[in-house]
Amino acid sequence: MRQAGTNLPKVGRYNQAVVLEQIQRADGISRLEIAEHTGLTPQAVSGIVRRLIDEGIVREDGASRVNAAGKPRVTLRINADAGRTVGIHFDPAELACVVVDLLGRPLATLRAPTPASLDPDDVVAAMAGLVEDVLRAADVPRELVLGIGLASPGPIDQERGMVVSPPKLAHWTRVPIKQMLSEATGLPVTLDNDSTAAAIGERWAGAGRSVANFAYFFFGTGIGGGLVLNQQVYRGGSFNAAEFGHMSVQPDGLECYCGNRGCLETVVSPAAVVAEAQRRLSAGGASVLAERFRADPASVDNAAIRDAAAQGDPLATGVLEQAARHVATAVVNVVNVTDVDLVVLGGHGIRHVEQLYVDFAQQAVATRVMSRHIRVVEVALSPLGADAAVVGGAALVLHSTYSPQLSSLLEH
Amino acid sequence: MRQAGTNLPKVGRYNQAVVLEQIQRADGISRLEIAEHTGLTPQAVSGIVRRLIDEGIVREDGASRVNAAGKPRVTLRINADAGRTVGIHFDPAELACVVVDLLGRPLATLRAPTPASLDPDDVVAAMAGLVEDVLRAADVPRELVLGIGLASPGPIDQERGMVVSPPKLAHWTRVPIKQMLSEATGLPVTLDNDSTAAAIGERWAGAGRSVANFAYFFFGTGIGGGLVLNQQVYRGGSFNAAEFGHMSVQPDGLECYCGNRGCLETVVSPAAVVAEAQRRLSAGGASVLAERFRADPASVDNAAIRDAAAQGDPLATGVLEQAARHVATAVVNVVNVTDVDLVVLGGHGIRHVEQLYVDFAQQAVATRVMSRHIRVVEVALSPLGADAAVVGGAALVLHSTYSPQLSSLLEH
Repeated sequence: MRQAGTNLPKVGRYNQAVVLEQIQRADGISRLEIAEHTGLTPQAVSGIVRRLIDEGIVREDGASRVNAAGKPRVTLRINADAGRTVGIHFDPAELACVVVDLLGRPLATLRAPTPASLDPDDVVAAMAGLVEDVLRAADVPRELVLGIGLASPGPIDQERGMVVSPPKLAHWTRVPIKQMLSEATGLPVTLDNDSTAAAIGERWAGAGRSVANFAYFFFGTGIGGGLVLNQQVYRGGSFNAAEFGHMSVQPDGLECYCGNRGCLETVVSPAAVVAEAQRRLSAGGASVLAERFRADPASVDNAAIRDAAAQGDPLATGVLEQAARHVATAVVNVVNVTDVDLVVLGGHGIRHVEQLYVDFAQQAVATRVMSRHIRVVEVALSPLGADAAVVGGAALVLHSTYSPQLSSLLEH
Repeated sequence: MRQAGTNLPKVGRYNQAVVLEQIQRADGISRLEIAEHTGLTPQAVSGIVRRLIDEGIVREDGASRVNAAGKPRVTLRINADAGRTVGIHFDPAELACVVVDLLGRPLATLRAPTPASLDPDDVVAAMAGLVEDVLRAADVPRELVLGIGLASPGPIDQERGMVVSPPKLAHWTRVPIKQMLSEATGLPVTLDNDSTAAAIGERWAGAGRSVANFAYFFFGTGIGGGLVLNQQVYRGGSFNAAEFGHMSVQPDGLECYCGNRGCLETVVSPAAVVAEAQRRLSAGGASVLAERFRADPASVDNAAIRDAAAQGDPLATGVLEQAARHVATAVVNVVNVTDVDLVVLGGHGIRHVEQLYVDFAQQAVATRVMSRHIRVVEVALSPLGADAAVVGGAALVLHSTYSPQLSSLLEH
């Protein structure tokens, strides 16, 4: 029943964020251009910019440009050095930690194995140590740090800042990690699941920078996703939207741990690719891998399959292309449901097959999406590479501090 | 790059719509309750309500309720008789026309075959005739009519008010139907595709009345859909979101006219159900339909299959259950992507199988959706029955006139 109204203070904060976002996304922009892009009056823009300059977040660029009418316009830019944020990616196997400037540019990155005990206290202590180390490595004083953004395996209980029994951390039942990490570091912590964080990183510093609607496929340990719809991160009614890895692409396929059948994750994960190659080899498929398989089946792993495919082996190529076809089917389904402008594929899990996946997905959206005669949706590879989730963690803080969020315009 | 700011006049209009929506959705509500639900101040609510009463849209109910503190509160209701809207559903086979009050309640409904020529001029003339007739039948003076909402097969070019080559109207290349119908009737026309209109009808007068996020599966000639996300109709980057009928549920299945393979529509449409039954009968499946099939294959139609299933025939039951399973798979995929609170199944195309589809979809979301341990999504049958699209047409006018739309808060 609740649908919130809004009021003047909320509108002021929202408009300030709208202006800041214009400056953040542009490579230099004038007050008048901001007014044109946002529909705000030049007076309103000037007032907001004055406050942002006073706060040190925005600076006037020395070089003024001259517009068509011959009038000089002062160029505004984000003062990237006005603050720093720290991102942590918590993967059950590895912790990554980055410090970035206000434009989301990494200044230093560190990685360390996750403590083998996977005990929450040990993990938090290791995270706090990494934060110390990364700040020292980048020579960043603590008082410049706006906060830590933690990208964690989901599901997350946002309200309580808890990690709730992720698949690979089954004994983490309701761990209040946000509070624990904040106490261990003395810094405010923003928590989100890794794929949402990666999508926010994509919006802040990657392929989604100026795109109103995009879907982000995150290939990590599993396959997750994020959705930006109408310029806003869309989270869904229970904060569980964009579970792209659990769309069924083979309704008669294998049962997934999630309860569904033939999920994208069950046919595209590294383990599934190996199993499929071994199945085809067992069935006597011709391949440069056949002999190795007979001698030692376990030696036919992802690296071996990739190498064989790179040499043009038809069996290995067929296995990888089948995975790419499944990804393409899921991409088409997501586009037919969400009608986004862009699909981004990213995460460390697609290393080595990224171009194959992008090619198949591009081909599929150009030929199989319902609205393709109106416009063809773009498919892009994330430029953030294996750092998507950790940069996304850092972007969580930037996003919650600076992005115009309708929820804050309307919440009460 | 564009992300709009907002300002005071836009905020005023938006807040008025928020208040009106609270009154519309409640079965009697007080000013103070509106303030509590919306976060607006009691003063702001009182000012808005005064204007709405002056305009005649809202009335004070004679009976005042007494709250816990013993203070009487005046109950506000929509003045349902303050206006009327007309809905038209344009189906290639049939035109339907309804007149409703401000609460979306039908006062009269008429149907007529669509002119066989399918010529735009003939169709518009037939629509205009139906509008005359339905207003006469309900004794509604024209000056009370706020407008006509036309639910048409898509795709639609919203900006130009055109129908753009729908599958079953291939020669309708860019017909400016909005303007044609407006000229023929002298009334303003709001145009949308039938499944979006049906979803808006569901939000205004059906199962989606107080639900923040829902997906509407529209079973008509084909299968379409509508999405309401964060209280707003979500249309997508090219106005083509929610093409649920073209999600692939059988990636190795038959090619669909849309270019995709194994689309939900290809395996669940009435023609697909008949084809599957005939395939199973050809293969010698045991069934009460076997003899009839041998004598006259064409006599095994949808009605025959339904009758056989109702008698417990295993072949007919299997065919219908297979279709229900495909619908359930698509529902699970949509919920995993959008994380809606509710899925509504509706439209004239599920008559006779509605309970089977709802049962299978309910079972699937309770056991196969990723977030089911956090909350189980509800699956409901539309209460609007075969009138979903035509009531939706009428609701288009109510929606564009009265609903709080973020787009109007932010557009410039």
